[in-house]
Amino acid sequence: MHLANSGFDVAGVDNFLRRKWVGEVGSHSATPIGSMEERIRAFKQSFGRRIHFDYGDLRNYDFVYYVLEKYKPDVVVHMAEQPSAPFSMIDVDHAVLTQTNNIVGTLNVLHAIRKVVPHCHLVKMGSVGEYGVPSVDVPEGFFEIEYRGRKDTLPFPRRALTDWYHWSKTFDSGNLMLASEIWGVRSSDIMQGIVYGTRTDEMVNDHLITRFDFDAIFGTVLNRFCAQAALGHKLTVYGSGGQRRPIISLRDSIQCLTLVIENPPDEGEYRVFNQFDEVYNAAELAQKVKNVANKLGFDSDIQHIENPRIEDEHLHYYNLIHEKLQQLGFKASHNLEGELEIMLTDLNKYKQRLIAKRDHILPKVGWGD
Amino acid sequence: MHLANSGFDVAGVDNFLRRKWVGEVGSHSATPIGSMEERIRAFKQSFGRRIHFDYGDLRNYDFVYYVLEKYKPDVVVHMAEQPSAPFSMIDVDHAVLTQTNNIVGTLNVLHAIRKVVPHCHLVKMGSVGEYGVPSVDVPEGFFEIEYRGRKDTLPFPRRALTDWYHWSKTFDSGNLMLASEIWGVRSSDIMQGIVYGTRTDEMVNDHLITRFDFDAIFGTVLNRFCAQAALGHKLTVYGSGGQRRPIISLRDSIQCLTLVIENPPDEGEYRVFNQFDEVYNAAELAQKVKNVANKLGFDSDIQHIENPRIEDEHLHYYNLIHEKLQQLGFKASHNLEGELEIMLTDLNKYKQRLIAKRDHILPKVGWGD
Repeated sequence: MHLANSGFDVAGVDNFLRRKWVGEVGSHSATPIGSMEERIRAFKQSFGRRIHFDYGDLRNYDFVYYVLEKYKPDVVVHMAEQPSAPFSMIDVDHAVLTQTNNIVGTLNVLHAIRKVVPHCHLVKMGSVGEYGVPSVDVPEGFFEIEYRGRKDTLPFPRRALTDWYHWSKTFDSGNLMLASEIWGVRSSDIMQGIVYGTRTDEMVNDHLITRFDFDAIFGTVLNRFCAQAALGHKLTVYGSGGQRRPIISLRDSIQCLTLVIENPPDEGEYRVFNQFDEVYNAAELAQKVKNVANKLGFDSDIQHIENPRIEDEHLHYYNLIHEKLQQLGFKASHNLEGELEIMLTDLNKYKQRLIAKRDHILPKVGWGD
Repeated sequence: MHLANSGFDVAGVDNFLRRKWVGEVGSHSATPIGSMEERIRAFKQSFGRRIHFDYGDLRNYDFVYYVLEKYKPDVVVHMAEQPSAPFSMIDVDHAVLTQTNNIVGTLNVLHAIRKVVPHCHLVKMGSVGEYGVPSVDVPEGFFEIEYRGRKDTLPFPRRALTDWYHWSKTFDSGNLMLASEIWGVRSSDIMQGIVYGTRTDEMVNDHLITRFDFDAIFGTVLNRFCAQAALGHKLTVYGSGGQRRPIISLRDSIQCLTLVIENPPDEGEYRVFNQFDEVYNAAELAQKVKNVANKLGFDSDIQHIENPRIEDEHLHYYNLIHEKLQQLGFKASHNLEGELEIMLTDLNKYKQRLIAKRDHILPKVGWGD
């Protein structure tokens, strides 16, 4: 919607797996999401522009080839990945589904781009979790390494967070790097922090709002805290809450995406961005939500629960360099508290939908099960 | 055969995909390979020991679970991967087949080990190609990194050789590292050099010989040179032939495997070996084969052809540290010339089978096609 409203011709592709998967784990979006046809109609009414759409699965190469032939895009934005760490840890079937869905979709996109639109710019969503939590600074993709008296410029080592999902993201990054190297594909790989928020500027009415997942499988940490605050539940921090993670609002994520698209890489360039705004640990994030909730009149408290994940939850060093997007002009649009106020106000409006699925906020999938 | 002959109880698992794939690309093994039943019977006759066997596909989790339940192994040796770079470059279907076959098989093995035999030692075949050809020394898996004034021990960066196959090997290594970290799986990851040779010591007659692929897709570089020498064809070097690669004979690969099995890692340890004997570039290897062939009376010459791969073919720095297997007692059993003599003598015996498929030695799959 933001790109269409900025003058781009936009065509979307989806097979609605996210809706299906959230339903399978027993939950739904806090915000009510209409059919794609309804959403496209609502956007046309508000903004006067038509967004094209094709239903299909990126795991089907013929479909990917077909849509690239149909639209001949200058830019492909690939966000069609299974995005949940706990989902990948449910059992072997979900581990296999996560890794094959993500790898096959990306392989098909790369092969079809090469055949149909070789000069197209591919923007792919990665994750800061690909780097894990090393004790050294993390560059944006590549760095100069010195070892036993010699030097080389190499990708920063990927030792991802401790789940099959985050490792699958490192695999896709490898495949992108290869396609740029051998076929000259222009690619931007976004190592994105944890996204939170209910809105972008184009969500001017209920028909255009984005989905907001708050269950333990698909809800990200700040979204879950806000849902708990809106419900008057305790904000549940996993373990001691020392896990430091970079965050970015949905609104700013779209701002960054637009900057990346407006500033394409060279032919054959594989370019990595570390895309986030601030870094907090889980306990600090809970405290931020509690403070804003209290200010808005929600009763809110914090509870530490047993960590379902196997991860380092103690305070640790964490410093990801993030300069490239700032150099392209990125500026955070709100501070965290401002965005949290908007979220809590939105969620209060949809409180009945939170209540309906409140049993799905606490974790049921454990890494050690 | 070597392990069974050394006193281990051995059960094999295969779905014979290698035979099928070599057939699909139009070739066959230079050595005639009987059915598994014939081979097991021949081994029993010569060595008096029974090797168990189950037909099945590692991509089928229920099958993997079943065989682990059936045998309750102390060690699982996982070599069931699609092993060819050119095969993965044929088209998108072969890229997807390679990466999904390799990842799904390994994910299933890891999940089944965790459920059935959590203390079992997993030995997985990786590739030195996972490291690519960096300009710095390459440690055995992990190294101490110093960056912007801080230190950490991290996996050496994987920037694999330029094909989907080698990248798939880095993916499996990541999955092994994760399983050891979160589930305590004991694992040994073998970064193996290019294997060559026709024999191990147990191949005492024609019924027990191993397969020997010499086609452009499944034949490794020394095997192809030897087949060409036995046929009186020119030895075809890809491009300038400066590509430096580590090599190891089949016989010594089995010696290393035995040492790794006899010296298991600790619970939760993920251990990496760089497994090879010597390093040569492609032009040097052709020269070695030519010299031995001439000595044995084969007419032999070298021809440089256009490189079908997109790779750095100029002389480059290349130094992989390989000390761990030497510390366990590894000693090369023959020098290269000695092993080449055995190979050429063996291949001369099967010359009719080489002639039948001689049109499949020159490359037909190009990285840039």
